[in-house]
Amino acid sequence: MILKARFGGYDGKGTRWARTPEEFDALRNEWEPGGWLAEELVPFRRELAVMVARSANETRCFPTMETVQVNHVCDLVFPADADASEAAIAAVEAVEGFGLFGVELFELPDGSFQINEIAPRPHNTGHYTLDWGGPSQFEVHVRLAMGLPLPELTGSEAAMANLLAPGPADWRAGLRAALAAEPSAHVHWYGKAELKPGRKVGHINASGPGCRERVVRAREAFWAGAR
Amino acid sequence: MILKARFGGYDGKGTRWARTPEEFDALRNEWEPGGWLAEELVPFRRELAVMVARSANETRCFPTMETVQVNHVCDLVFPADADASEAAIAAVEAVEGFGLFGVELFELPDGSFQINEIAPRPHNTGHYTLDWGGPSQFEVHVRLAMGLPLPELTGSEAAMANLLAPGPADWRAGLRAALAAEPSAHVHWYGKAELKPGRKVGHINASGPGCRERVVRAREAFWAGAR
Repeated sequence: MILKARFGGYDGKGTRWARTPEEFDALRNEWEPGGWLAEELVPFRRELAVMVARSANETRCFPTMETVQVNHVCDLVFPADADASEAAIAAVEAVEGFGLFGVELFELPDGSFQINEIAPRPHNTGHYTLDWGGPSQFEVHVRLAMGLPLPELTGSEAAMANLLAPGPADWRAGLRAALAAEPSAHVHWYGKAELKPGRKVGHINASGPGCRERVVRAREAFWAGAR
Repeated sequence: MILKARFGGYDGKGTRWARTPEEFDALRNEWEPGGWLAEELVPFRRELAVMVARSANETRCFPTMETVQVNHVCDLVFPADADASEAAIAAVEAVEGFGLFGVELFELPDGSFQINEIAPRPHNTGHYTLDWGGPSQFEVHVRLAMGLPLPELTGSEAAMANLLAPGPADWRAGLRAALAAEPSAHVHWYGKAELKPGRKVGHINASGPGCRERVVRAREAFWAGAR
């Protein structure tokens, strides 16, 4: 089973595995404010994400992306060769949601989808839209809040790699190394005061053919340079 | 002839026509600091512009754009069906220039090019690169200044319309009108304290098919809404 803290869960925090009855019993005694949710493990093939924009007049989706998580934290986002927009829209409609939503889904072995998370806001899996040449998720969020019509949610293929801090590091040297190694990559650095281990401190976008390989290479150069 | 003030010319300021000997004689008596340059009128077919990026190691061009001037001021920029990059690079090499250059050219009736202006900096005709999904001219400018390698200067087709103030106007209402009329347009408002008539106070970008028509429609909606 997967156990999830009922409150305060974010970016993988508050999520625990129970693979055996013994592990489950051990977690019983761990206190979490509000208690736990216990969910059956889903044997998914891969994880997908869709940003859904819904107003009173129209519903539109950004492209379906594939996401890779490391230690329950989003690590990499790139275009999926699947279309989960119908399931994502159904999820937002089911909760009578209006605005911008990040919907995360499991793709099951039979090709069907199961909703994993509905985030009522701009979302990490939509950060690639800052550099894809089409509308950004933040622009769409503001348009929805202001009651303005929505643009076509199309752009170039794009990919994003998160920057998770390894601990204190020379991020200026890392930035320079990434910009030198991958001229087509865009580094978004959040300016956090402290690089706590595992903290999301930025992300790297690239668009066009080979974007996935390029963001991964740029990230490797970043942390190699920041050492 | 065209008379150009030797100093302080910018955005069409300091440029005068002399169509007849009488007009020329009249301008003789108009004082300009540093005097005038008198140039033969060029019967061009259209005006083109190319952003050239040149470092010690490499030279790259953004796509060739067609530009439309109104009263000597750039009004509209959109993709040209011509390639003037060779002439633009030759112009930058001729002045031994390194860095980012906006090169404006006349296309003559025989299809050849004549250099009109070399601007050693990011340039109005390159503002479309803020929203085309490829590298922006500002990013390339910084890369050149820092000695970093250059990315491929490719992106989506894109167009730009300048916002020239008609005089005092309700720009907030204009902004809202433009965003409502053309959801795919990106309005860049410069926040100038005063909307002097004819002053460049912003520009509008759009990318993808129909981008030229869309920036023009967005601009019409902007000034209609700002009235």
